[in-house]
This record gives sequence, C-alpha cells and structure tokens, in this order.
Amino acid sequence: MADPIIIGTVALDSIETPFGKVENALGGSASYASFSASFFSKPGILSIIGRDFPEDHMNFFKEKGIDTKGIIVGDKTFRWQGYYEFDMNEAKTLKTELNVLETYKVEIPEEYRNAKYVFLGNIDPERQIQVIDSLKNPELIVMDTMNLWIDIKKDQVIEAIKKIDVLILNDGEARQLFETTNLVKAAKDALKLVSKAVIIKKGEHGALLFTTDRHFSAPGYPLENVKDPTGCGDTFGGGFTGYLEKTKDISEKNMRKAIIYGSALASFNAEGFGMDRLKEVTKKDIEERFEEFKKLREF
Amino acid sequence: MADPIIIGTVALDSIETPFGKVENALGGSASYASFSASFFSKPGILSIIGRDFPEDHMNFFKEKGIDTKGIIVGDKTFRWQGYYEFDMNEAKTLKTELNVLETYKVEIPEEYRNAKYVFLGNIDPERQIQVIDSLKNPELIVMDTMNLWIDIKKDQVIEAIKKIDVLILNDGEARQLFETTNLVKAAKDALKLVSKAVIIKKGEHGALLFTTDRHFSAPGYPLENVKDPTGCGDTFGGGFTGYLEKTKDISEKNMRKAIIYGSALASFNAEGFGMDRLKEVTKKDIEERFEEFKKLREF
Repeated sequence: MADPIIIGTVALDSIETPFGKVENALGGSASYASFSASFFSKPGILSIIGRDFPEDHMNFFKEKGIDTKGIIVGDKTFRWQGYYEFDMNEAKTLKTELNVLETYKVEIPEEYRNAKYVFLGNIDPERQIQVIDSLKNPELIVMDTMNLWIDIKKDQVIEAIKKIDVLILNDGEARQLFETTNLVKAAKDALKLVSKAVIIKKGEHGALLFTTDRHFSAPGYPLENVKDPTGCGDTFGGGFTGYLEKTKDISEKNMRKAIIYGSALASFNAEGFGMDRLKEVTKKDIEERFEEFKKLREF
Repeated sequence: MADPIIIGTVALDSIETPFGKVENALGGSASYASFSASFFSKPGILSIIGRDFPEDHMNFFKEKGIDTKGIIVGDKTFRWQGYYEFDMNEAKTLKTELNVLETYKVEIPEEYRNAKYVFLGNIDPERQIQVIDSLKNPELIVMDTMNLWIDIKKDQVIEAIKKIDVLILNDGEARQLFETTNLVKAAKDALKLVSKAVIIKKGEHGALLFTTDRHFSAPGYPLENVKDPTGCGDTFGGGFTGYLEKTKDISEKNMRKAIIYGSALASFNAEGFGMDRLKEVTKKDIEERFEEFKKLREF
C-alpha cells in the first residue's frame, strides 16, 4: 500500500540559473517530495497532470516505486518558468501557467485513505484540507506551504495548520505568518496550532525543530556549488516524511534524524539542475552525507 | 602577565532599541571582548580613552581582572550613538564622534609584547598591523574587522589578514571582502590568506568554522527576547580567544569548543542592554548554556 501519501503539484519547469538552463523538466512539489520519500518508502502522489505530460516522467515515477493512482489527467499540465540570479536565494518567476491546477478537484483513491503518513506539499490549502478530512486514521500529517498562500488564503492556511501534526515553513514564511521577526516567537505561536512540532527551514543556514519543550538546530550542509535550488524545500519535506514512515517512529528524537535525512537529500538536489543530481544519488551516498552532517556539528 | 592582549575601541555608547534605551554606557570592541575573555583569562587592553571617561568604567575593568596598562588617555572618549529597529539585525548609526580615535597611536607596554594570544578587535587595520608587528613570539593571532574598513581600507585589511592565524568575519563582511555570495567560497579564499582558520558569524544562525580539511557548524542559541545585540560580535571573539588562552590548545577540535563558549557569552550579551546581562552571568551559567548548546544539536 502506498505510504506516505503526498499531495502537491506535478509541473513542467523551465529554469535558468547563472550555471545553465533546462526546459520542461519534471518539477512541482509532489514530484520532488515523492522522489525524495522514495529513497525510504513507497509514496503515492495526489495531483493532476495534462494530456501533454511526457510518458517518460510517468515512467520515472513508476521506476522509483511511486504510486501514481492518485494522479488524475486533465487538459494541460501546470507549467512554471523562472530564473535565479547569482545569489541563488530566491526564485524569480517569469511565467506561471496554472492550466489543470485551476479547476483541480482532489480525487482520493480509496486505499490512500488508509495511509498512516501524509505529506501535504505546497498547493492550495483548501486541497490540503480536503486530503486531511478524507484520511481514516493517520499517524502523522506533515504540511508545507508557501508565501503565495499566506498572502491570498491565510485563513485557510491557518485552518489547515490546526488539523496537522508537523508544520514546515521557511524562515520568511514563519515571520510573515506569525507577524514577528523572531523565529523563536513564530515557532511558539505555531506550536499552539499544531499537535506536535514546527520545523523552520533556513536554506543554507540549516533548519530548526521546535517542540513544546525541546529545540533542535540542524546545520546547513556547506555547498560550494549550488546549481539549482528548485525543489529543495519539497525534497526536504518528502525525505523527512518518508524517513519517518520507514522507521515508524515519530518521537522528537527520530524527527531530528529525519530532518538530517531531509537536509541531506535537499543538499544533493541543489547540486544539479532539476532532479539531475538526485537521480544519481544512492542510498550509500545518503548515509555518507548523514555521517558528514554528524561530523560538522561535533564539539 | 596579561594574556590575551586585546586591541580595539573603548567607547561610550548611547543605544535605543524597541525595548529600551541607555546613555553613555561602556562600549567599544575592546571593552566587550576583554570583559568576555575575562571569564577565562586575564586579558590586557590596548586602546585609548579621554579624560571624560568615567572612573567607574575603569574600575569595572580592574574588578574583572582586566589589565589596563595599554589604555592611553587623550582628550575626549570615542562616542557612538545608534538604534535598532524591530528586526534587531542591524545597528543604525545616528552619530559617531571619533574624538581620541582620530589620532590614536598604539603604545604597547613592553610586557604585552610577550603575549601568546592576541585578539585584534574591530579598529583601523593599520593599528591592528602595528600590534601584530610588535609581538615577539605569538601563539595565536585572532582578528575581527567590520564593513567600514573593508569599504575604506581594504588593502590594509588584506595585509593584516595575511599576518594572522584566525579570521573572524560576519557573513555580510565575508561576502563583501571576497566578492561572492557563497560563504564556502568566501571561506576558501580567506583560508589562502590566514595560517589556520576562518570563522564566519551568522548572528541568529550561529557560526561556521573552516579549516583546510574540516568544517564545523555551530548552532545559534534560540533567543526569544533579544534586547540589545550591541557588542555580540566582540563578545564572541573575546570569549573565543580567552577560552583558547585558558586551555592553551589551538587544535581545530578545541576551537570548536571555543566557538561554543564565545556563542554562549554572546547569547547572554544580547539578553540585556549594554553589558547589563553579562554582568550578572556566572561561570556556572556559562557551563549550563554550553550544555544546552550540546543538546540542541544532538541527533
């Protein structure tokens, strides 16, 4: 049975950075998150594509053991075109064609309703809520979002957050959503809404895990050559959730490990265009990078 | 004998933040750094004050076992007036009165020339060079600087860096000095100039230590209430150098510990106005915070 279930976008991305470009590459939050989770688990995707979606990409999901029963087919696939300038910190959008996403209604295969682990990738919060409400007896619901939804659907974002266990935000989103520059304050506010934990992603500076009585600071991996950061946040969230599903242990202690695995996968992802680098990565590479993370925080 | 020797400014600071204000408080890079170092060592200050410098402040140095033989007296003390807005990230300068600093010529007491440990706090790089050149047989020279000197005396900053062992920069300064947004690249460039190590301070995101073959990522301490960050960088550098002097061990492994001690002291410093909070801190508090740093990075 597919587990974790991952909702999000499946996209065709055209990206340019100072180090190269790629056109119509497989992208979207559900694609990155499920690929990342597939290193540990057998994820299933909830999303929508168009009839123009290349069969190669669909085959890729299947090769990785990703269940695609929850991907419905509409007219034209969601497309995103963007670029990064030298600082590589912020994606600048050139063009967004929502296409099938505009009218997407989530159709949840019956067996997905039994999933124990769920990653709500970046997508309209109303669709995230629809997924939550359809689950029979979930063990852990992890949710990601983005500044766009905080801008235009803040109430629905908050409504979703109240129904989940672990919230993942980046630092800018945390400051925006809880209207404070202090990340500790933002995390404390978020902890009043979720049942278990808040994770704040800080890009090159690593990630923070907050639970009611503990705090974990995960280091950033020192990357000298970032080629394309697209999908790093989704890769992090998918890897985090996939590792927790694999180990069936949602203790704070194990979440710390899951964060390091998510960070390791995201660091690989940034080293290549689109999913190029992640496609070469082996389980051994991941374990080695996990060990590197240990060494870089020892004192 | 005084060791480490610390050069830098001794100032009267007037600071306003959203949480309060203070006037003519003891400030300056040498004051913060030597106070911080005094938790571990018997530092000596090289600096200049004016005849208007309050005797209380001078007594404070003495109480803390800080040697003041290297402080000369001119006409009017250096004064800085600044404020912080809500994000507390950047000091905005309202007024700088250089006063005695304008014509300061370093006078080095003969016994200071035997010091084994040196912290070159933020001050004109030509004065930092003068100190380096007067040392007989130093074990470790640690240097801090600021964006102002990189702006107006970059050649001298580079000249100083070539003579030292450990360079401390904040992330913005590292990017500026080495003309790259990537901190790993900046650190690699810096390592070509110094003999031992580069430390990049990242404020709330912690600090990075780079040596030729190793990398250490120190977590930031999660502070919910930052009252006044003035002097945190100097406190970090002084604590780092003081701990190394105390332990007489300049291995990479011990530098990691020294960074955590420096970070612990800086985190206390940010919790109060001027030096108020640091004045209450005991050695036990520091050890407890050191242990907290351990817990927040375990996985």
